[in-house]
Amino acid sequence: MSELPAHVDIRDVSLRDGLQIEAPIPLAAKLDILAAVAATGVREMEATAFVSPSKVPALADAAELAAELHQFPGIDFSALVASPNGVRRAVAAGLRSIEYVVSAADGHSRANVGRSAAESAALIPEIVALAHDSDVAVEVIVATAWDCPFDGPTPPQRVVDIVAAAVDAGADRLAIADTIGTATPRRVSDLVALVRPRAGGLPLGAHFHNTRGAGLASAYAAVQAGVTRLDASIGGLGGCPFAPGASGNIATEDLVYLLRDCGVGVDVDLDAAIAAARVAQDAVGHGLPSALLRAGDRMPG
Amino acid sequence: MSELPAHVDIRDVSLRDGLQIEAPIPLAAKLDILAAVAATGVREMEATAFVSPSKVPALADAAELAAELHQFPGIDFSALVASPNGVRRAVAAGLRSIEYVVSAADGHSRANVGRSAAESAALIPEIVALAHDSDVAVEVIVATAWDCPFDGPTPPQRVVDIVAAAVDAGADRLAIADTIGTATPRRVSDLVALVRPRAGGLPLGAHFHNTRGAGLASAYAAVQAGVTRLDASIGGLGGCPFAPGASGNIATEDLVYLLRDCGVGVDVDLDAAIAAARVAQDAVGHGLPSALLRAGDRMPG
Repeated sequence: MSELPAHVDIRDVSLRDGLQIEAPIPLAAKLDILAAVAATGVREMEATAFVSPSKVPALADAAELAAELHQFPGIDFSALVASPNGVRRAVAAGLRSIEYVVSAADGHSRANVGRSAAESAALIPEIVALAHDSDVAVEVIVATAWDCPFDGPTPPQRVVDIVAAAVDAGADRLAIADTIGTATPRRVSDLVALVRPRAGGLPLGAHFHNTRGAGLASAYAAVQAGVTRLDASIGGLGGCPFAPGASGNIATEDLVYLLRDCGVGVDVDLDAAIAAARVAQDAVGHGLPSALLRAGDRMPG
Repeated sequence: MSELPAHVDIRDVSLRDGLQIEAPIPLAAKLDILAAVAATGVREMEATAFVSPSKVPALADAAELAAELHQFPGIDFSALVASPNGVRRAVAAGLRSIEYVVSAADGHSRANVGRSAAESAALIPEIVALAHDSDVAVEVIVATAWDCPFDGPTPPQRVVDIVAAAVDAGADRLAIADTIGTATPRRVSDLVALVRPRAGGLPLGAHFHNTRGAGLASAYAAVQAGVTRLDASIGGLGGCPFAPGASGNIATEDLVYLLRDCGVGVDVDLDAAIAAARVAQDAVGHGLPSALLRAGDRMPG
């Protein structure tokens, strides 16, 4: 078996990817979730997105939320952007880290941002320069890295090319995202093996949804293949709220359980993560798909 | 990465492990599930258990069900037993394959069958001889192979010793079972690596529950480590029916999706498995935790 790393960084994406398709909840409820997630010990959180408020009403309070983040020192907060204007808004709101998302597939890219994949990739240098001018770190996330809901399987070379463009432009971090929850371990291993040599030594993260039950298996395969950063959401927030139990992001607490039991260190405390999932469940008003939220930790020993 | 096998045998355990803790359903409803599962192309099914009807009322119709199995030629039906008397009942009912379960942990063994682990293991030669006298094949399943709900982590040597005893007694097949759904990939890889050299070349199966979300990740780790037979249930039947969404066995359709996408051949058709999960959901009258049942297959391509 492959060697596992001693430590994996978990970024909690509850407040952005987790809430993005929920009905909007009050800022105070978001801060309750944030405080509960902060109490887990997590070091990185995706706080919001600076995108179109009409397209993503659940995140229309991005600037107001950003103004509260100073209450949680010691956490590296990031925000997702999809354009240079998004960078400007994130910088103005005081964010120190942004994520620029580039879809590797044209179908998803056009549906999401009205540009082709190549057009989005061509913006990477401008995005990086804008952010770096304000000492803001940039992660480039390759969306639909395995499959596109419109175009089908994504040719791996498209992912490699975007990663190479990000490295060339001076991006600080990279990630590959299973946007629609279709990835499985072997394709994850294969893509990570292709991407890593082109990552220029930058930290490589991965982002999985548990839509087809393979999210944790894919995350584990990614870690085996050399990924050291994983996104997850408390409770598995991020599924369709109108389909009870439908999975969103991989659940932070389920990921922590698995990694801890495999001897991989994480910054997130399991009991605190389960407690945070309860807070999130109350905030959104419906059940969340997390397994640990129901089953709890195994007996110690 | 490890090489994956070209084919993995899936045994559907819906009718036994899947229904065992449900409220009893009529024999006709079981036959509806059976027919739907048979239509998936699966070659092996665990049909029932010959155990105490008062302890497992959901399977009290074992002999009646067995009398119907001739309707489904081409499927190797097995039944679980926990004693020599169970073997006699299974043989009398016409079963051609039995599984004898031995808990590796004393706490679970005493709670389950009122014997120590060693006492249960000591019965293996008698069980095998009884079955072989009637030309019935015997699989020895090591339960609580990773953790016991009473004793905590199971010392791996206990599992190895039971496997060695089964091989010495002439058992036909072996399996290791994550009875309470706590296993994770690294411990699965580690245990399979320890057990395989003692398996005497017999087929080695594994049995996982998705209780803590790691069931598919563990199954994949098992396959990477050399396991070629996996148990699963349609829809993920087998969770606690009073905790909606609580996971039971790994879902057959989720496992098929993952293995197929990893290039591993299976006998089970994915669409037919999803259709069977719907039949099972109707039969038990509550939602099942399967991911594919909600999300469906990804687009072809």
